[in-house]
Amino acid sequence: MKTITVLGGGTGTFVVLTGIKNLPIDLGVIVTMMDSGGSTGRLRDQLGVLPPGDLRQCLVALSDAPELWRKLFLYRFEKGDFEGHNFGNIFLSALEKVSENYNQVLETASYVLKTKGKVIPVTFDKTNLCAEYENGIVLKGESHIDENHKETSRIKNAFLEPQASANPYALQRIEESNLIIIGPGDLYTSIIPIMLVEGMKERIRASQAKIVYVMNLMTKSGQTSGYTAMDHIKDLEHYLGKKPDHIIINNGKIPEDIIQWYTDHHEKPVVNDLVATCCNGTIIEEDVVDNVSIEKSRADVLTRSVLRHDSNKLSKIIQGLIAL
Amino acid sequence: MKTITVLGGGTGTFVVLTGIKNLPIDLGVIVTMMDSGGSTGRLRDQLGVLPPGDLRQCLVALSDAPELWRKLFLYRFEKGDFEGHNFGNIFLSALEKVSENYNQVLETASYVLKTKGKVIPVTFDKTNLCAEYENGIVLKGESHIDENHKETSRIKNAFLEPQASANPYALQRIEESNLIIIGPGDLYTSIIPIMLVEGMKERIRASQAKIVYVMNLMTKSGQTSGYTAMDHIKDLEHYLGKKPDHIIINNGKIPEDIIQWYTDHHEKPVVNDLVATCCNGTIIEEDVVDNVSIEKSRADVLTRSVLRHDSNKLSKIIQGLIAL
Repeated sequence: MKTITVLGGGTGTFVVLTGIKNLPIDLGVIVTMMDSGGSTGRLRDQLGVLPPGDLRQCLVALSDAPELWRKLFLYRFEKGDFEGHNFGNIFLSALEKVSENYNQVLETASYVLKTKGKVIPVTFDKTNLCAEYENGIVLKGESHIDENHKETSRIKNAFLEPQASANPYALQRIEESNLIIIGPGDLYTSIIPIMLVEGMKERIRASQAKIVYVMNLMTKSGQTSGYTAMDHIKDLEHYLGKKPDHIIINNGKIPEDIIQWYTDHHEKPVVNDLVATCCNGTIIEEDVVDNVSIEKSRADVLTRSVLRHDSNKLSKIIQGLIAL
Repeated sequence: MKTITVLGGGTGTFVVLTGIKNLPIDLGVIVTMMDSGGSTGRLRDQLGVLPPGDLRQCLVALSDAPELWRKLFLYRFEKGDFEGHNFGNIFLSALEKVSENYNQVLETASYVLKTKGKVIPVTFDKTNLCAEYENGIVLKGESHIDENHKETSRIKNAFLEPQASANPYALQRIEESNLIIIGPGDLYTSIIPIMLVEGMKERIRASQAKIVYVMNLMTKSGQTSGYTAMDHIKDLEHYLGKKPDHIIINNGKIPEDIIQWYTDHHEKPVVNDLVATCCNGTIIEEDVVDNVSIEKSRADVLTRSVLRHDSNKLSKIIQGLIAL
């Protein structure tokens, strides 16, 4: 059985995990632990817990429990003392308070959610993502970088403060992996933070695992504004310490009204300017757009989350790579 | 196998359930649903959910899950957005929001807590406990009655507003019971509210079950100030519609420093002035004081919750009554 490891934590990771969780593989996900916004940020600040949001998403993505448990973990309180908090975040935070260590938290959550696969925090250290922009500005905190939409200057250097040590099990997982899947996800707030944790870059470089990078569909304002596909790869390579082996990039059509929504928010489709030498293996150009979700939400207000990769389309491509 | 049903919801019910949950009986607890104070009150008001606090206590009392789950459900957040809230209350409230009905909430909570016995809300209607005092004052809301410590006037009439219909399964449970255990617990805020729910008094009166009343150790200021044991029985009989069959009353010694703490709070041991005709069966006078808890907490600050009935002592007496 092949050992497949996904790196990330956001919505893109949720989509990938959902797509491949039922394959006959040993599946794991190494989760970024630098989220500092919204419900997660408040829990971090007020209770001193590790950021639960990305872990919760991964746990639910891998869950094989009845739908009610998945709904419960994703339930967001709309008013009162808990306004804006996800139940799953509260669950992980309270569990951390009564557990002996974070492994016990994850074991308990995995038990109740019947997760098919291992959820592995990249670090157990409390740390903050920082970004130094080309214009000299330095931002500390993932949420500030994430929300810095109007920034036109590029990020020159991303780092952690304080430096964080890798979860030993994350390092071991990299070593044991046959395939590592990176992305899709916000490059600087979901993907690169994982490589910044002490020991991770070296272990990935030394790994025999093939590395697949799933290119984002759209740029992200203030973070990868104006980035082409090659820009993504260059930055990734810098923090990864090597080229990816395979790149999956969309060639499917994104509906005009969706593009218009993004244009209004200063974002646009990532232009495919990949050259053959940018990876060690293959550039896989396929339609990976989730048209079903777009159609389903046509009746509602369009938002960023409407445009996603399609779990099944990604899964088929990944199955091909696993079989290599 | 005998069918035993406990009526109540507070700490006293927790003690009784803990004592008898491992007996070879069909155990159930019919839970008061009028709590409106603290964490429970805020959740009721802000989210429109049923009051979770008493249900949580009963679920945990009956839990056979690993200690971690019990700790988690009783965990109280000490700061931040959730200050003062029990995790178990948040769990039940979020679950109510994503469930089809409250039976699903209880099934899910019972599953995860591996409860040995059935937890049955007395009603699914949203209602408030009201008390009319002899001096003419009327208070609405369980928490206001509970906190009305300085009241010297007695409660003339307790009622619900709006009137609430019994959970059909609570009525059925009464019918099927061989033994019904009432108390210990605050007479007007934990015990009598159950009899006020439409249909409950009639069903209990018509039941063939023997009724055991566990007399409180102490009076409660503003609620049963100055009450003797006979005063408790008279009020209970009024709302129950019949005499209890058996009464368990303490004759064990309560330590002087504990009595002093209560005296400072205008409360005192319930005087045993029971006469043979106050019940249909036997008056059981035994030492039922939990001396272990008192000794354990000697190092800490004394509080009301230090003095409790002893689970094991109560269990032994109840086993004798079950065998009758």
